[in-house]
Amino acid sequence: MANGRSDKIACAIIGASGYTGEELVRILAHHPNVDIKALTSRQSAGLSPEVTWNLYPQGNLPDFEDLEPTDLLDRADVFFLALPHGVSAQFGVPLLDAGKTVIDLSADFRLNRADVYEQTYGQPHPAPALLEQAAYGLVEWNREALRNASLIACPGCYPTSAQLPLIPLLREGLIAEGDIIISALSGVSGAGKKADLFYSFCERAECLTAYGLPQHRHVPEIEQECSRQAGRPVRVHFAPHLVPSVRGMLSTISVPIEVSIEVIQNCLRNAYEKEPFVRYLNDAAGFPTSGAVAGSNLAQLAARASSTPDRAWLLCSIDNLGKGAGGQAVQAFNCRFGLPEGLGLGARS
Amino acid sequence: MANGRSDKIACAIIGASGYTGEELVRILAHHPNVDIKALTSRQSAGLSPEVTWNLYPQGNLPDFEDLEPTDLLDRADVFFLALPHGVSAQFGVPLLDAGKTVIDLSADFRLNRADVYEQTYGQPHPAPALLEQAAYGLVEWNREALRNASLIACPGCYPTSAQLPLIPLLREGLIAEGDIIISALSGVSGAGKKADLFYSFCERAECLTAYGLPQHRHVPEIEQECSRQAGRPVRVHFAPHLVPSVRGMLSTISVPIEVSIEVIQNCLRNAYEKEPFVRYLNDAAGFPTSGAVAGSNLAQLAARASSTPDRAWLLCSIDNLGKGAGGQAVQAFNCRFGLPEGLGLGARS
Amino acid sequence: MANGRSDKIACAIIGASGYTGEELVRILAHHPNVDIKALTSRQSAGLSPEVTWNLYPQGNLPDFEDLEPTDLLDRADVFFLALPHGVSAQFGVPLLDAGKTVIDLSADFRLNRADVYEQTYGQPHPAPALLEQAAYGLVEWNREALRNASLIACPGCYPTSAQLPLIPLLREGLIAEGDIIISALSGVSGAGKKADLFYSFCERAECLTAYGLPQHRHVPEIEQECSRQAGRPVRVHFAPHLVPSVRGMLSTISVPIEVSIEVIQNCLRNAYEKEPFVRYLNDAAGFPTSGAVAGSNLAQLAARASSTPDRAWLLCSIDNLGKGAGGQAVQAFNCRFGLPEGLGLGARS
Amino acid sequence: MANGRSDKIACAIIGASGYTGEELVRILAHHPNVDIKALTSRQSAGLSPEVTWNLYPQGNLPDFEDLEPTDLLDRADVFFLALPHGVSAQFGVPLLDAGKTVIDLSADFRLNRADVYEQTYGQPHPAPALLEQAAYGLVEWNREALRNASLIACPGCYPTSAQLPLIPLLREGLIAEGDIIISALSGVSGAGKKADLFYSFCERAECLTAYGLPQHRHVPEIEQECSRQAGRPVRVHFAPHLVPSVRGMLSTISVPIEVSIEVIQNCLRNAYEKEPFVRYLNDAAGFPTSGAVAGSNLAQLAARASSTPDRAWLLCSIDNLGKGAGGQAVQAFNCRFGLPEGLGLGARS
Repeated sequence: MANGRSDKIACAIIGASGYTGEELVRILAHHPNVDIKALTSRQSAGLSPEVTWNLYPQGNLPDFEDLEPTDLLDRADVFFLALPHGVSAQFGVPLLDAGKTVIDLSADFRLNRADVYEQTYGQPHPAPALLEQAAYGLVEWNREALRNASLIACPGCYPTSAQLPLIPLLREGLIAEGDIIISALSGVSGAGKKADLFYSFCERAECLTAYGLPQHRHVPEIEQECSRQAGRPVRVHFAPHLVPSVRGMLSTISVPIEVSIEVIQNCLRNAYEKEPFVRYLNDAAGFPTSGAVAGSNLAQLAARASSTPDRAWLLCSIDNLGKGAGGQAVQAFNCRFGLPEGLGLGARS
Repeated sequence: MANGRSDKIACAIIGASGYTGEELVRILAHHPNVDIKALTSRQSAGLSPEVTWNLYPQGNLPDFEDLEPTDLLDRADVFFLALPHGVSAQFGVPLLDAGKTVIDLSADFRLNRADVYEQTYGQPHPAPALLEQAAYGLVEWNREALRNASLIACPGCYPTSAQLPLIPLLREGLIAEGDIIISALSGVSGAGKKADLFYSFCERAECLTAYGLPQHRHVPEIEQECSRQAGRPVRVHFAPHLVPSVRGMLSTISVPIEVSIEVIQNCLRNAYEKEPFVRYLNDAAGFPTSGAVAGSNLAQLAARASSTPDRAWLLCSIDNLGKGAGGQAVQAFNCRFGLPEGLGLGARS
Repeated sequence: MANGRSDKIACAIIGASGYTGEELVRILAHHPNVDIKALTSRQSAGLSPEVTWNLYPQGNLPDFEDLEPTDLLDRADVFFLALPHGVSAQFGVPLLDAGKTVIDLSADFRLNRADVYEQTYGQPHPAPALLEQAAYGLVEWNREALRNASLIACPGCYPTSAQLPLIPLLREGLIAEGDIIISALSGVSGAGKKADLFYSFCERAECLTAYGLPQHRHVPEIEQECSRQAGRPVRVHFAPHLVPSVRGMLSTISVPIEVSIEVIQNCLRNAYEKEPFVRYLNDAAGFPTSGAVAGSNLAQLAARASSTPDRAWLLCSIDNLGKGAGGQAVQAFNCRFGLPEGLGLGARS
Repeated sequence: MANGRSDKIACAIIGASGYTGEELVRILAHHPNVDIKALTSRQSAGLSPEVTWNLYPQGNLPDFEDLEPTDLLDRADVFFLALPHGVSAQFGVPLLDAGKTVIDLSADFRLNRADVYEQTYGQPHPAPALLEQAAYGLVEWNREALRNASLIACPGCYPTSAQLPLIPLLREGLIAEGDIIISALSGVSGAGKKADLFYSFCERAECLTAYGLPQHRHVPEIEQECSRQAGRPVRVHFAPHLVPSVRGMLSTISVPIEVSIEVIQNCLRNAYEKEPFVRYLNDAAGFPTSGAVAGSNLAQLAARASSTPDRAWLLCSIDNLGKGAGGQAVQAFNCRFGLPEGLGLGARS
């Protein structure tokens, strides 16, 4: 942490009062190279984040403000957008036009094709010309693209937990033709901060449920990126579930294989051996759990044999607000600005 | 409830102080045709179940006792065994020899073949000769066998939630060749009443995890019964998960199909139309949830389209202690003795 | 359960789709002397409660309807009102005018004085003339008044858990002059079925909080009834808390005493010795817990020594939806109509 | 964070694998002035804490070892003891004899008098001569004593949450004669990492309970310190509760007053105005909650009016593992070594 004050990058967090925004603020408030210059929120405008969230006294956090992009151009160079889809793209365009760096945590720039976006989100894309420009923020597999990106599209939490185990195997051609079946569990914070009976304590406690079928919005993103990495079209079957946990995400994936389970395991172990945020668990190390990565930017991975040798189970746990959202965004930010990738994320520099 | 006192059947619950035993006692204590004549428990011997569980004053529950089968022959005609596997078979043999009816909730009589049992449970079967004699207690699909059974093997909770949606489709030949992928979630009570750090509140709260891979003990039971119902060998890939809920079970199953999703949905709807304890949910009725069946003997079922038309998602929720254990055992008891199937289970006679 | 169909009492449940209404329906649907003739709900009008709540097939539950009192006069003789305060009194007046029996679960008829009501609820009482007429539904201490009541005011959950331990001691003069300090914990269902961010899963999980200070609405009710039973003015200091549980309530009360703790304990033990729904726990029986009474109409009580002999701790646990709402209402109904008090409440008749 | 490597203090954490030990390691691993030189644990000896807890790659954490004090004398200068009471004092004596600094998180050095210790813990104190030597680690009120201490006794979690609101009022003479009644709620992690049925998920979820009455072990500590600060004997009545939360603690205290509630509130506000880790909440800021301080070394405080003007409610929330254990120990460490008090605790230096 040899970086002096002169190295600080002026950042703004847009939509800062939701769960993702809060996670971003908590991380960036301690990032040695970040000066938080603006926090926007309609609901919390005028309030102090230190008071709202009872943060440690930093003396460096501005109050929440309700500001438009034009109000912010002089305030910051990097903008983290934690806004709903649709809104995010509209907010980002004038920032990009003004030469700012935008790190978008919404779904607006994850898909390459405007027609797929419209089909998935039920509305035309607000800025289709930017879709090609966006670098996909799954850092482990897109470092080169991120280093020069002015627009970074951070992956969704489900796609992150699905892609981390799938990509190395797809790149090595170790997943055979056949159906990829993803069953994923999410904590309730993944749905955002909502005054909605469905998300009330009494309705969600002691209740396990699937949702979003037949086609969850994250499927096109998973398929697009898996196909790109595989060099061939990849389809997936995806069933998301909501379980009584605030945080946490676990993807359990059944894949067809033509090699032994050891080959699968070695591929994953080797792929992430030097990655600071992805841990492969050997059989002796137990199963990936969301508890073990709670509050962090870490992912746990494992591969296990299935009932027959022509399939394998892949497992990946993350914190949906960590590696699935705020943590990954900061990791991408670090990558973009040539900083040590773990800066501000718990790893020592 | 026209049954007078003379119709009462003398029952004993063996291993009554675990979660399954407690559920059985709570149900049977209000069953109009049951007299509970003995409750055994090593740990709780000498205590009163009314005090231990704060039951309503029934005036009809004996204290827990630590008794052997020979002590019990004069006490009851029907024995519910809520014992660990291995122990259960040993306890049941002298009861069966004496002509008693045994309703076993352990895994000891679910498998037909002693070699599969030994392979699955790591010990020789204590009474292999009885394996053929046992009737499998998934009532909806085994009523005839149950009516004359002296030994009933109640299904495991995972197998129940997997078989309910699979069996009608397998019987009708609507599941194509290809991989059946089951991802199942369980509440923590499924692991039993245990002084084990892994099952402590702090370790299980806010934690999602898979376990039991590569081969959970329930896989052979699912495959045996599905194969029997299908009339062809059926293999499944099965990944169980533990989530922070006391009760509840949800199975999400991806199956290959060659018919439309509507055909699948109609098959399930029709199969269970007259079943009091299985509810098919139309698309408009939402997803099966464990919350909606908590504390009951009900199952909720649904089928939903997958990403491509050659696969479908099947969903089934139960209470692991209800339809997955105690409720189903009482339903089988009712069936065995020609009583209305819902007696004591919340359904009016 | 010798009661034939001719003994059935025609009942309606008004505001049936909230948590209290649902609890009432679940209890009354199996009550041998009740015919549920109407279920009203604005939000759920047109839906079936069996489908909404996945109830066992009773064949006896009407769909939810959105009805006014005048629509209901021909439908039922007894009306359970599970409505918000203010609304409840307005709904009840025409029913009472028509000679119906009203069992009100709101706060509208719990207070004797209209001025205290207005001060507490911030609005004039809608039917002050009825306040004197209402019988207070804490059955254990008001049986005589209930037997002929046309209007029963069911106690609040907090007042129930506070009064059960206090009343016997106050009646015997065993609580000395000095401060009565009540700290009470409630599960989240006590707040009702609400689309409110404060009650969302992510906000309430892993969060302990007090609320309602300086003066919770239940204080005047506690003081009124305690004073009436004591024959002298009784003031209490009351701090309610919200904890991450769906159901459950626990009151911990510090009282000044001039007798030994054994005298206090004996008084409570004796007072409830013959009460089917109140259990005094000896020191060896452990502490009252909400888990032990979940889903029931039971209360657990205990008294324990404090740091100095001039004070004692009183403890009382109930299910806020059971003895704290729906269960107690049915107990009062049974009392009113001369039925065995435990009918439909899990106790055998 | 200008401290170079030469400023680092060699630390050891003894009993590092429990919840308190883990919290300490997580904090100290990122403390800029700490070098963790040893982590001891009988159960986890040979394992890596990075693997066990899935910590970010620090490259600076030793494996767990099973070591005696004599093995450790050359390894570290400061020893954090996260051991059971009794064991802790025995471990600490040779370290103190060798001139090491000991920061003890057990109860062994919190009480001044060996006879009170023996009465409270049922065993003679292992090192009574050291009792006078220990500085009590409630930093806000003992800074001078801590600066030169070789033995620091960190307060218990309950005493911390009780003393923070009581001490300023007692010092100012604002609490009148009369009974101080403390009702405190704790998350389950306060009981430690235990394979115990009582602490299992199924037993603690959906269950509210008091425990530890008549006399919890923390009462003498609260009374000793409150008396010392008040300059007069102070007795308290204390009822601890266990609620379904992993972390968190909330104390709700009823105190007799002879001044207005505003005087009480101003006293607390002023007392902690400059304290980085204690936040007084005005009426408009809502109630102290455990959620708002989870994972931090913060305390939230408030005072609220009671039903009558001669009493007030005091409220204090902390994280039982943060300000109630590991966080406070590190704050005391910082104070002892003249470091900025928030170092490593989320506050910027």
